[in-house]
Amino acid sequence: MIKIHGVYGSPFVRKVLVLLDLKQVPYELVPQMPFARDENYQKLNPLGKIPTLVDGDLTLGDSKVICRYLESAYPDTPLYPADIKDRGRADWYEDLATGPVAELATGIFFQRFMRPFAFKQEPDEELVSKIIDKQLPPLLDYLEGELPAEGFIFGEFSMADMSIASPFYNADYAGYQVDAGRWPKLAALIERVRQIPQVKTILAKEARTLGLN
Amino acid sequence: MIKIHGVYGSPFVRKVLVLLDLKQVPYELVPQMPFARDENYQKLNPLGKIPTLVDGDLTLGDSKVICRYLESAYPDTPLYPADIKDRGRADWYEDLATGPVAELATGIFFQRFMRPFAFKQEPDEELVSKIIDKQLPPLLDYLEGELPAEGFIFGEFSMADMSIASPFYNADYAGYQVDAGRWPKLAALIERVRQIPQVKTILAKEARTLGLN
Repeated sequence: MIKIHGVYGSPFVRKVLVLLDLKQVPYELVPQMPFARDENYQKLNPLGKIPTLVDGDLTLGDSKVICRYLESAYPDTPLYPADIKDRGRADWYEDLATGPVAELATGIFFQRFMRPFAFKQEPDEELVSKIIDKQLPPLLDYLEGELPAEGFIFGEFSMADMSIASPFYNADYAGYQVDAGRWPKLAALIERVRQIPQVKTILAKEARTLGLN
Repeated sequence: MIKIHGVYGSPFVRKVLVLLDLKQVPYELVPQMPFARDENYQKLNPLGKIPTLVDGDLTLGDSKVICRYLESAYPDTPLYPADIKDRGRADWYEDLATGPVAELATGIFFQRFMRPFAFKQEPDEELVSKIIDKQLPPLLDYLEGELPAEGFIFGEFSMADMSIASPFYNADYAGYQVDAGRWPKLAALIERVRQIPQVKTILAKEARTLGLN
């Protein structure tokens, strides 16, 4: 069976688990915290990041790489657009959202959620303000300009929608929501993705893991 | 005609230009420095990074995304393996090499080459030592374990080989070479990729741009 090394609550693990659930592919979630000093895990993934997929003799890091592999290996219930140009755009949005956007959103999550709750430390509010006031807005402006007023980016739900929404569930755990007055399309997309049953299920499991209810 | 916004000397632009030359796809290189405060360019790519591809109404950032799009749009002379698991591995190596490995290698390049030559500043040798002695070795160890003793990773030359080699040409401009005693397979792959005619041609153009000969 496919093994996914990771934990509930990671915006990157979340993407992969939603994809597997939508494709109805069974998997085992192997508990692994990110950046743990765990030599065995670093043999699988030298970055120490999560998720890592192990499928027989194949080991892959990076949620984008894993999602693309699973899309090719399990093409039923496609989760990327078929048109070549649309697929390029989906890949670009996923790269942008899973990279720089997620880095900022998880920065808010780490400071305001993980530090107080897991490490009993104060958040660095100066850093959080810099993210919220300076660093995120140009990226949110760009995404807003790319998104549809209704529905999903390519009509059917795709990993582009999931990738854009996912980091903001972590920011939300830390009390930050995308301002629906300033970025209405983005804020609406995040809520639309949240209503997908497989997303709801994963978010409910996360809430239990993170002690949120 | 396809437009690539970027400059010679970027390890990311280099990947895309080599791919286009190998596929014999004509393109125009539109001069663009990375991270320039250029509002028009930031409309194309909110990260200000290079390269950005413009192909008619399609605009894509990120060299990995661009290379994948061009592979789909111009499937002759394939530059990614066809087998699904091999393709997953190729994507993973490209992600690792174009991301964390390139970040470190271009760190050496920026400090020891760009700062003295372009900005008349001293390099931060403490930072460079940290990269060379602490941060790069675990990644080089990992790559060494994944590489073949001879030839290319998937038999035929692929963007996985190109992605792994590319950042080290920049480190080389700054006087850093991968230690062939410690990482013989990696050092050999970098030289093997350098001998590909299309790579040689691009590196020669770069050398002129960077004033190296």
